[in-house]
Amino acid sequence: MPMSVLDVSPTTVASAVAACATAARAAAPSLAKASDEAIDGALAAMATRLSGARALVLEANAADIEAAQAAGMSAGLLDRLRITDERLTAMAEALHLLAAAPHPTRSVELGELPGGLRLVERRRPVGVIGANYEARPNVTVDVASQLIKSRNAGVLRTGSAALGSATTLLRSVIAPALSDVDLDPAAVQLVPSADRAAAGALVQLPDLVPLVILRGSGDSTRSLGQLAAQHGVRTLAHADGGGVLYLDVAADLDLGIDLIRRSLDRLGVCNRLNLLLVHEDIYATALPVIQGALSTLDVTPSLPPHDHAVGYEWALDADREATVTILPVADAADAARVSNEETSGLAACIVTESSETADEFMAAYAGTGVFWNAPTRLLDGFKLLGVPETGINIDKVPGPRGPVTYPDLCLRQYAVLPA
Amino acid sequence: MPMSVLDVSPTTVASAVAACATAARAAAPSLAKASDEAIDGALAAMATRLSGARALVLEANAADIEAAQAAGMSAGLLDRLRITDERLTAMAEALHLLAAAPHPTRSVELGELPGGLRLVERRRPVGVIGANYEARPNVTVDVASQLIKSRNAGVLRTGSAALGSATTLLRSVIAPALSDVDLDPAAVQLVPSADRAAAGALVQLPDLVPLVILRGSGDSTRSLGQLAAQHGVRTLAHADGGGVLYLDVAADLDLGIDLIRRSLDRLGVCNRLNLLLVHEDIYATALPVIQGALSTLDVTPSLPPHDHAVGYEWALDADREATVTILPVADAADAARVSNEETSGLAACIVTESSETADEFMAAYAGTGVFWNAPTRLLDGFKLLGVPETGINIDKVPGPRGPVTYPDLCLRQYAVLPA
Repeated sequence: MPMSVLDVSPTTVASAVAACATAARAAAPSLAKASDEAIDGALAAMATRLSGARALVLEANAADIEAAQAAGMSAGLLDRLRITDERLTAMAEALHLLAAAPHPTRSVELGELPGGLRLVERRRPVGVIGANYEARPNVTVDVASQLIKSRNAGVLRTGSAALGSATTLLRSVIAPALSDVDLDPAAVQLVPSADRAAAGALVQLPDLVPLVILRGSGDSTRSLGQLAAQHGVRTLAHADGGGVLYLDVAADLDLGIDLIRRSLDRLGVCNRLNLLLVHEDIYATALPVIQGALSTLDVTPSLPPHDHAVGYEWALDADREATVTILPVADAADAARVSNEETSGLAACIVTESSETADEFMAAYAGTGVFWNAPTRLLDGFKLLGVPETGINIDKVPGPRGPVTYPDLCLRQYAVLPA
Repeated sequence: MPMSVLDVSPTTVASAVAACATAARAAAPSLAKASDEAIDGALAAMATRLSGARALVLEANAADIEAAQAAGMSAGLLDRLRITDERLTAMAEALHLLAAAPHPTRSVELGELPGGLRLVERRRPVGVIGANYEARPNVTVDVASQLIKSRNAGVLRTGSAALGSATTLLRSVIAPALSDVDLDPAAVQLVPSADRAAAGALVQLPDLVPLVILRGSGDSTRSLGQLAAQHGVRTLAHADGGGVLYLDVAADLDLGIDLIRRSLDRLGVCNRLNLLLVHEDIYATALPVIQGALSTLDVTPSLPPHDHAVGYEWALDADREATVTILPVADAADAARVSNEETSGLAACIVTESSETADEFMAAYAGTGVFWNAPTRLLDGFKLLGVPETGINIDKVPGPRGPVTYPDLCLRQYAVLPA
């Protein structure tokens, strides 16, 4: 394995990030030119290497865990930081799944042009994609594998608490797996700095890293997105999440309660039920049933009048994570309006037995996912599309939107050739 | 026809733009819900109305021309500002063409999900799209028609010299044509201000106008793009253009000269030949032939050593518009490298009889269009795709790229429904 940027000691965070980006860019053509077989071989080799490096990875992770415990990390964050035997196995399975997933067509014939020419629409890799994510070691493998699948080089920046685990995963799993199939091991870079400033530096290199995936939600993601935009760097991100469920007057209340439960099977996640809208004609009768269901889930309803914005995202509020806002609305149109205007536009579900009302709601709601009689938690790349998502994007513009998966990470190019 | 925002007198430019955006947003559902037949009917009605309002439009345009002449506008700009009988006919023909163009599928079944559900990928209109463009009255109809075809409302802002013509086109053609098919005539708004500040105001309304098409090139487009990014507004734009042609050692020189001519049939346009790269082994012999051809076109070669950046875009330089930069390169890989690193990434052509060398160049060049033995001027929505482009985007990220046409102006949404 050639010397990687991890072996040098850059004097500043920004220069460390720039060095990673430069190295990734130099290695990018290796992935761009690779055959589908080589790409899938690299992913399979990652799975094999992951099993082979099990002891090394667990040791590095134990050191991260110990340091985080000593620093007073909360139990929830410690759980996300921890790698277990079971999780390592799941990571390897995810790699095999991705290796087996189909490659999108690289070129589509669009037709003939005058003068004996033909037009082809081609999909090209972006080149180098950045990714900034929380202190979860599995995400290092997850994001790296999806970048490789999409034939993009990458610069990864993880939360500092996971840097030891991530470094071991890069050196003992990702880089050697690329080498195993004669791809350039420098194609995936990990920023070798625990400094939070690295995230900011990563979104300021438009010529080297034109696109950065921002995982996670909240103000830090929002700030990074704004910083990126100022520097001409595009991000795929969702600073805000929060699922909406609308219980229509024509709802099957039992189904509604079931969907509420299934939309709250996890709490600290962006796609869980955050705002429950109830048709005003059934509000009085449904509310006690809803409250009963929520209490069995240890979830607190926030009833009107609210002392917070209607779309306030509880998942980001460590003190009140187990809260759901409840609001009566006039009808499906009003529910769609509230969902469009007061929430992030991640996902909304209508519970109704009326297909006309469902159609009306689904036509009016403009978020990234719209569901009829289905839980908000479905807004997820794996659940919808069967492949892990690199992130979720809630931009209201053309391009990848909602769960972003590896086929999205490409550039369109028109090619004209002799027929 | 209901009172439009043109009839009020906002006190400031920003409030005028915001009023347009608010009116367009209120009218947007009318287009979003419209049937394909209504949309195409509106476009056909625009063509009919354009013929009926011929005298009114020519009169308004004559007033614009007179004012521009009095203000000392150059002959080239006056030509772009002028509407003639012939151009009116061409505008009507373009509308009929667009009306006959197919509508992209609004929803695609992706498969079944567990629990008796099915997944559908849907295309939704963006809502309201902004467009800022030069003082060319035909662009008002052109952009409005493409927004309507894509079921998007719009806020148009034209160069001040064309405001009279554009206002007449809006009041006498676009708005009544929408009314003719019972669509909301307020869906297309024109900023009723000649103040250049309106362009800046249009890119600062992320909640109302999340996407703005910037036509034209140069520093003003670049500044508007940066301002938009700072305010969370996405733009589709190309501040820089300039086609590249690479004459390979295995080129048919006669074909090369023909392609140079055909890439220079207009000068003040972004997709014309700007940088001519010549394989060093044929440079000495080919240069006199190239110079001879350029001289018949009254185009001046800029030979090395250059006193400007290799990618300097002559089309934007009024004093030296008729210039082409010439540079020897080592081979196709070097040509692709120069094209990628020194130019905007709009389009590049390789002239060669070697399919291997062509493949190598086409794999390496990452711009929006890559051509083999074809002129750079093909980088054009109409020439490639048979429909007018709303603009050209040279972002190096996923999403609409190269010529942007009406099927690009949509949002992706995942819908889950009972199977």
